[in-house]
Amino acid sequence: MKWCRYHSAEGPRFAMVEDEEAFPVYGNPFGLYEFEGPPLLVSELRLLPPCEPRTFFCAGLNYHGHVARANAAGHVDVVSPQRPEVGYRANSALIGAGDAIVRPADYAHPMEAEGELVAVIGKPLRHATRDEAADAIFGWTVGNDVTARQWQRGDRTLWRSKNSDTFKPMGPFIVTDVDPLTSTTVVCVDGREKASFPTGDMIFDPLDYLREISRYITLSPGDVLWMGTDHTAEFAPGSTVAVTISGIGTLSNPVVEENLP
Amino acid sequence: MKWCRYHSAEGPRFAMVEDEEAFPVYGNPFGLYEFEGPPLLVSELRLLPPCEPRTFFCAGLNYHGHVARANAAGHVDVVSPQRPEVGYRANSALIGAGDAIVRPADYAHPMEAEGELVAVIGKPLRHATRDEAADAIFGWTVGNDVTARQWQRGDRTLWRSKNSDTFKPMGPFIVTDVDPLTSTTVVCVDGREKASFPTGDMIFDPLDYLREISRYITLSPGDVLWMGTDHTAEFAPGSTVAVTISGIGTLSNPVVEENLP
Repeated sequence: MKWCRYHSAEGPRFAMVEDEEAFPVYGNPFGLYEFEGPPLLVSELRLLPPCEPRTFFCAGLNYHGHVARANAAGHVDVVSPQRPEVGYRANSALIGAGDAIVRPADYAHPMEAEGELVAVIGKPLRHATRDEAADAIFGWTVGNDVTARQWQRGDRTLWRSKNSDTFKPMGPFIVTDVDPLTSTTVVCVDGREKASFPTGDMIFDPLDYLREISRYITLSPGDVLWMGTDHTAEFAPGSTVAVTISGIGTLSNPVVEENLP
Repeated sequence: MKWCRYHSAEGPRFAMVEDEEAFPVYGNPFGLYEFEGPPLLVSELRLLPPCEPRTFFCAGLNYHGHVARANAAGHVDVVSPQRPEVGYRANSALIGAGDAIVRPADYAHPMEAEGELVAVIGKPLRHATRDEAADAIFGWTVGNDVTARQWQRGDRTLWRSKNSDTFKPMGPFIVTDVDPLTSTTVVCVDGREKASFPTGDMIFDPLDYLREISRYITLSPGDVLWMGTDHTAEFAPGSTVAVTISGIGTLSNPVVEENLP
């Protein structure tokens, strides 16, 4: 199954997607829903992030290649994490597929795209085994962990380098029947491939993370876990950046510059 | 005005509080609401956190005394921040006044309470002046930024040291007509005072933070900004920890140990 979420006249709504059509529901795919209203063309919808998490989890350094290349480049302080430790992102930064990524007016450097697999949680989860964690994953979507690297280096936290408005595109769809660890993640800028890596080449997989998180924290339906990236890709205003994970979809966003009044 | 949020048979509801009584509403205090149903006794309600933020902001080091004492104790790396930089906490950690703080089964050290002033946002806010920021603050409540310090020292992020389930008590009420920068924050464990400091002795005040955050990030009604602490206070299972900010209220929570099955 495939789900999207979109702006309707009455507010955000979920819809089940089949081919080019979206079948709107009342309710949500994690709980109760019923179909209501005529099918719509997906191409005519303004998509929202396919869910809004209560808590927005994000793995940091989580790819073997990422660590190896950082070490080769002389960053000896970059070491593989020994445990799956997670961080948090801001819901306020989420945008949907097709929405514009806005470079802040006072940030003059290139931005960086980080193509990431996203696990979408469908059931409450606490003290989970790997099997229980697998059962609680409703589906998968695509995230772009947009980063202002200069700010990341200079600030005390990731507050604006990774969480400025529009810095967390997510979507377009949640796909339920797929094994994403056999997929390939590709990041393109203006149609040119800038990064490509096996989605599953992770240090800790999603079940490792969910087992560890749920030792201390209750996950809720609609929560998301972003799984980290291997290769980053620079981009600038005027371009379009697209993250594709095979079997899940392509998350494409134009990039503009902030215009202050 | 004073507001609370509580568990009702139909789910979470807001209520306006006057003396010992709560007047339930449909809707919420940041937008439209209407009174509905008979008044209830506040003492008989199971309180929720008085709002659930879309994004949960938290200042780090933000008190002059905190920096001075850390330096006096030989922590030369603790320096006053030059700008109001914020971090994020997990909604999943929020509990209400009276709910139990649970010490995780595998954490054997003392826990630490950090009594904090919390600004509750009532209007969307972006590129705000100090005046606009002041106008967008709906009211104030009390937070306890419960910390497992040993984990904070050893982990790569604050994921579990500050965000394990139950580690973010908030409440009991949102109070709208008060100047909290003239208040005093007091932390008591089992009725004994363990920390006391002028709430307003901050390095950056709430309006400084909101002006800076809103340069990059849109704040939404119901968002919360926790303002940091001056003195911490240790506590253990079996005790009750209470944070009082004069003019706003007392946030009291019993402490228990996690019992794994």
